[in-house]
Amino acid sequence: MAREVAVIGTGMSAFGDLGRTAKSLFTEAFTEALESVDHGLDPRDIREAYIGNMGFGGGQIGNLAALLTEHSRLLHIPTRKVENACASSGFAFRDAYLAVRSGAADVAIAGGVEVMNDVSDVRKRFWLGVSGDTEWERLAGLTFPGVYGMMAGRHMHEYGTTREQLAAVAVKNHANGALNPKAQFRKPVTLEKVLGSPIVAAPLTLYDCCATTDGAACAILADKDVAGKYTDAPVWVAGSGAASDYLAVHDRESMTRLDATIAAANAAYGQAGITAKEVDVAEVHDCFTIAEILAVEDLGFAKKGEGGRLAVDGTTAREGAIPTNPSGGLKAKGHPLGATGAAQVHEIFLQLRGDAGGRQVRNPELGLTHNVGGSGATCAVHVFRR
Amino acid sequence: MAREVAVIGTGMSAFGDLGRTAKSLFTEAFTEALESVDHGLDPRDIREAYIGNMGFGGGQIGNLAALLTEHSRLLHIPTRKVENACASSGFAFRDAYLAVRSGAADVAIAGGVEVMNDVSDVRKRFWLGVSGDTEWERLAGLTFPGVYGMMAGRHMHEYGTTREQLAAVAVKNHANGALNPKAQFRKPVTLEKVLGSPIVAAPLTLYDCCATTDGAACAILADKDVAGKYTDAPVWVAGSGAASDYLAVHDRESMTRLDATIAAANAAYGQAGITAKEVDVAEVHDCFTIAEILAVEDLGFAKKGEGGRLAVDGTTAREGAIPTNPSGGLKAKGHPLGATGAAQVHEIFLQLRGDAGGRQVRNPELGLTHNVGGSGATCAVHVFRR
Repeated sequence: MAREVAVIGTGMSAFGDLGRTAKSLFTEAFTEALESVDHGLDPRDIREAYIGNMGFGGGQIGNLAALLTEHSRLLHIPTRKVENACASSGFAFRDAYLAVRSGAADVAIAGGVEVMNDVSDVRKRFWLGVSGDTEWERLAGLTFPGVYGMMAGRHMHEYGTTREQLAAVAVKNHANGALNPKAQFRKPVTLEKVLGSPIVAAPLTLYDCCATTDGAACAILADKDVAGKYTDAPVWVAGSGAASDYLAVHDRESMTRLDATIAAANAAYGQAGITAKEVDVAEVHDCFTIAEILAVEDLGFAKKGEGGRLAVDGTTAREGAIPTNPSGGLKAKGHPLGATGAAQVHEIFLQLRGDAGGRQVRNPELGLTHNVGGSGATCAVHVFRR
Repeated sequence: MAREVAVIGTGMSAFGDLGRTAKSLFTEAFTEALESVDHGLDPRDIREAYIGNMGFGGGQIGNLAALLTEHSRLLHIPTRKVENACASSGFAFRDAYLAVRSGAADVAIAGGVEVMNDVSDVRKRFWLGVSGDTEWERLAGLTFPGVYGMMAGRHMHEYGTTREQLAAVAVKNHANGALNPKAQFRKPVTLEKVLGSPIVAAPLTLYDCCATTDGAACAILADKDVAGKYTDAPVWVAGSGAASDYLAVHDRESMTRLDATIAAANAAYGQAGITAKEVDVAEVHDCFTIAEILAVEDLGFAKKGEGGRLAVDGTTAREGAIPTNPSGGLKAKGHPLGATGAAQVHEIFLQLRGDAGGRQVRNPELGLTHNVGGSGATCAVHVFRR
């Protein structure tokens, strides 16, 4: 029998344009995770480490995971970097979960870090699409916002999704980010402001796009048999699903659907024995506003084509039926690529334990994280239960 | 109870300066692995993929694992890149093993690939030490051969190890490589040739150093309950151990010992219930000749300080008590960083099944792989039983 696994602590650095090193950020997130463990945790109990990073952290550094765990005084343990573009730490979390489930470790960490602002030309590299397909998209001149712009345009064409619906996602997530002291952007924005901001890749404007962010996050996982020693309020990993897809959008059957999300969600729901409707709070991968609309459809929160309504009618608001991205999401909290998946777990951990402060949603029991690599080449979905 | 896991097939591309792409190399290795499964394997049975790569494959590509599995027509499955410098696919193998052991997949692959020769200045990048410590070694001007040169000098000082003993490792491994049709170097070399070759980083000469190599390798793992469907000659993973250490050599207690190797080996031996003396054939991480001497000591094949003797007295020869690097090792077979760990598994799989052709060692039952990242920052050791 596979073992049951809980999250017993999480941490997150501030997100933003910070001028700090990957080591400093990761250690801050790890230290906060350690301190969040209710009854304390001897770091020597941690026996396996998985760290997501895409490679912006100064570049040309091998063994980054060993460097980071060394800096956090987690010496001598098995540690490795997991890279799946923007889904790096969603997969790091999955692999840490599987390691505990396998019996290799009773306690493991899954973290992630990215430094994006302190490297020359890195913004350009990111926007040019190193996360997406290189051969047929990037080298043909299709930028990453361009890919999502195409998806948005097609979604509008097929389903009548409107610019206002896209903008409503930004308004909601910036309103949530304003309540998150660690978010990169902590100011609400108006619909007019989003609609009137400069076009990045039509139909997406500046406020439809996440920024480039420095930051780190970390989660600590423990086997059921030992979890009670560390906390009375574990957050259980009820389901883990992951999948992949063609990197280039033109290879896929549809431009308005991420099959990797659908497959990962089905696997996670199946393992957890739940349906989408039972999810009480979700952190989804809104690297662009259209990405949240695709996510809520592909995760089953709305029918295909109807996702644009959810931010407008309040379904995904903090008080709505399925609060989505209460942290501010990638859009407002920020998107340090390799850290994003772990930061989503951090938010769901806080929400399920009632520790999310001013952005707390009402009494959630089931939470979900949804982390996408590229424009849907990889995806990891996790379901959590308190 | 954790599940038992077998290797049911492996494959490897040719190694060398090939002018081929990472996709082509990986697909060749995967296809060979698939074809090596005795009773056949439907690729759709593969449910999880772990791919080691350090990042030389053209650079600036995210989601490389998804790109590679897509190219091999392994569509929609969870796939991720694992990066631990030169130990990337040793850890990819460990994680694939843990995934099967956890019950997440009945069949998984662990592969690795690196393209090192088709990138401008990449040789320089490698030799400058992107695998080692950046801040205190590389930026201070200490190259990667320089690090191992220091270790070699110190080993000679402390234990009386000689230049001839170092050279004997190269002679042995080149002799083995001459029998391996896929090796980068397939010509024996003489002791005189090694000793007389140009100095790279004293006391290491050209023939003490591995070259820069393109190549890929892949292993297919299966749970015990299904392994019998695919093969009558599975190779069991008897033990998996992994560890890490300070990146910079100056932080370590000793320069003539890799504590990560010792910890990983102890974990693997403990799980397998064996001692070092029972190992019948080993593939160890000989990126430099001194590295093999450190390895045979740290793995327990010789007492500390006495490793230099083994290649001289024939202990590690193909006919010796513990044949070491019958494939030619990193030294002669080649060292495509991210592929090396998986290529070691490939060799041990062949050896334990009696399929190693002209370089077959006599009737081995227990095999070992030893894969090091950097100069010992990370290490994965696996024990296999036929």
